[in-house]
Amino acid sequence: MPAESVPLPVGFSAAGVNCGVKSDPAKRDLALFVSDRPATAAGVFTQNVVVGAPVQVSRERVPSDAARAVVMNSGCSNVSTGARGLADAREMTAAIAAALGCDDEAVTICSTGVIGHFLNMDAIRPGLPKLAAALGETPNDLHAAAEGMRTTDTFAKLSTRTLQTEQGGEARLSGAAKGAAMIAPNMATMLGVVLTDAAVTPSDADRLLRAAVDRSFNRISVDGHMSTSDTVLLLANGAAGPCDEEAFAAALNEVCEDLATDIIRDAEGATHFVTIDVTGLPSDEDAATIARTVADSPLVKTAIHGADPNWGRIKSAAGYAGVPFEPSRFDLDINGQAVCRSGVPVEFDEATLSDSIRSHRDCSLRLNFGDGPGICRFWTCDLTAEYVRLNADYTT
Amino acid sequence: MPAESVPLPVGFSAAGVNCGVKSDPAKRDLALFVSDRPATAAGVFTQNVVVGAPVQVSRERVPSDAARAVVMNSGCSNVSTGARGLADAREMTAAIAAALGCDDEAVTICSTGVIGHFLNMDAIRPGLPKLAAALGETPNDLHAAAEGMRTTDTFAKLSTRTLQTEQGGEARLSGAAKGAAMIAPNMATMLGVVLTDAAVTPSDADRLLRAAVDRSFNRISVDGHMSTSDTVLLLANGAAGPCDEEAFAAALNEVCEDLATDIIRDAEGATHFVTIDVTGLPSDEDAATIARTVADSPLVKTAIHGADPNWGRIKSAAGYAGVPFEPSRFDLDINGQAVCRSGVPVEFDEATLSDSIRSHRDCSLRLNFGDGPGICRFWTCDLTAEYVRLNADYTT
Repeated sequence: MPAESVPLPVGFSAAGVNCGVKSDPAKRDLALFVSDRPATAAGVFTQNVVVGAPVQVSRERVPSDAARAVVMNSGCSNVSTGARGLADAREMTAAIAAALGCDDEAVTICSTGVIGHFLNMDAIRPGLPKLAAALGETPNDLHAAAEGMRTTDTFAKLSTRTLQTEQGGEARLSGAAKGAAMIAPNMATMLGVVLTDAAVTPSDADRLLRAAVDRSFNRISVDGHMSTSDTVLLLANGAAGPCDEEAFAAALNEVCEDLATDIIRDAEGATHFVTIDVTGLPSDEDAATIARTVADSPLVKTAIHGADPNWGRIKSAAGYAGVPFEPSRFDLDINGQAVCRSGVPVEFDEATLSDSIRSHRDCSLRLNFGDGPGICRFWTCDLTAEYVRLNADYTT
Repeated sequence: MPAESVPLPVGFSAAGVNCGVKSDPAKRDLALFVSDRPATAAGVFTQNVVVGAPVQVSRERVPSDAARAVVMNSGCSNVSTGARGLADAREMTAAIAAALGCDDEAVTICSTGVIGHFLNMDAIRPGLPKLAAALGETPNDLHAAAEGMRTTDTFAKLSTRTLQTEQGGEARLSGAAKGAAMIAPNMATMLGVVLTDAAVTPSDADRLLRAAVDRSFNRISVDGHMSTSDTVLLLANGAAGPCDEEAFAAALNEVCEDLATDIIRDAEGATHFVTIDVTGLPSDEDAATIARTVADSPLVKTAIHGADPNWGRIKSAAGYAGVPFEPSRFDLDINGQAVCRSGVPVEFDEATLSDSIRSHRDCSLRLNFGDGPGICRFWTCDLTAEYVRLNADYTT
């Protein structure tokens, strides 16, 4: 479904406006997602030791059974800003609560942008009532909110799924995200929000969101640099009633995977979308550790960028992941071509495989380590000179 | 001392020749270091799960009190080559042993170059007697051997120190290394060898070499990709007699640090040499973990390349290293300029600091986390479009 036509679940409204944090008035820098009734809320946050004021405030407020809204700003992450930053984040949620007539605790907050700068509250303060006044229930309103989350993303990221409720009606999940594209002076951040009119308890919401994030947002990497502000929130207002848990979990997983892979498709400077499948290890955790290590190797990333089937880089990256394995059991396929079997080279036509990598944006790496049950699917991108340029060529 | 004039310790000879593994006959691809008498040998090897045949063979042969030689080739790493690769490595050491009239076990071996290819033994087999015949004791011979180790290094890396022996004479340590510069199709590798005429027992050699490597070769990173072939060897033939252990350890540390920092100064595409000092953590290990994480962040590396004092990238990288710390105790200086104190921004002139980064090849990052005794000095480089080009723009 085109991002412009993703509907909101029943009982939700959204808005996105420019308040002046971004100097270009055509670029939205505030976003708001609102449930018209108390909703279940769950959140998953960055594991960075350094976290921003918005993460500190939002962590206190989920899980909840009385959430009403998520407010977001882009352009400044409000990280490393001490007590003043915390007061600014609380003031933002209080302003939204006042506009909605609810408790401050019912509002969570996310911010993304440069670290170590204070929020421009002179712009944000008058912007928040304007934001609340712009709330609407159409796909355009949801799209505007997704725009308000963007930093260097080149497109708004939205996904939706429907499922049957227990009573035979229809429930919907609609999610928005912004990506981990990095550009100076911004420390970009992955933010996501999933809204649903399905009825979910706070403890189920928490558990199902963690599981969904573990296999979507936690399985992507652009450059291995974990942000201080990563946040994914789920709001479930129950307007459509309860659903079968398995069906709901599947829909939630799909929405999260759509959004996470969209982030990789929009990664800064990337020319390849890389899917890494790791199989045959003792545990899923081992498989994920190896997949992430391969994904974050600059040598693997540049080889893919250069359409170079230099598979020793992939095998050697697996070898330093910290997970023991038997090198003589290692099998590797690139774009379906076997290049290594039982640890030794397979003869293949390098020019044909290089052409395959060069001519397809999607690239597949399959690593098998034996007979173990541990698997992981992970997504990453290549490393290009454009990534370096975007992240270096900023002059203060 | 210029690399061309580094002398060999007493009782050592060296050689470097081209045998045809590298197609350009002006580029040496074989190197040999020989002691004229049985020497103590110690070695430190890669921790990668995947290791090459040369590492497997050399690991079996150190520590030793009867070592005679190290043979090396560049252009092919002989990794992921199974039983045939192991036989090739053993054949190389046997050929050198035959030329020197010693046991095979007295010869260790290192190889560097592309992974997953077999050695070109048709070139190497006739090259080894030629290599042994070229042995000489002059600085030129040592320099030729250092050339034979090179893959994409732009200069040969040599270092030397002298110290007094217990009997008032002079002992010497001379070391050679090749760098972790990466270029397709080569998986470059860090190789180092330190020769000394000081008398050292195998157990002391092993212990002192590990300590020296821990604070030199293990404290550098170009791109975080651990090779399958990293090896540092120490040969001590005792020709000059015993030395005070502390003085010897200091000289060994200095030679290793010289070689390790030379590798960073010659890192592929780099325009900055970055020294990271981490202090105030509970342990040196914690400090090293944080230093390495900061060093390997592409966002930190590109910010330095772009002369961007975007210090939030450094703090946030520290935050995901997996080491707990109190963010409100965090201090950071870039090129001597305080940018963060007690976790909050310090006002500074960004243009002046940006100029300082841009106009100096050397860049200093100082991170302090409190009052703990744990410290680490670590060296890295910036990430440039040239690095990407060199590692991507290879067409098979």
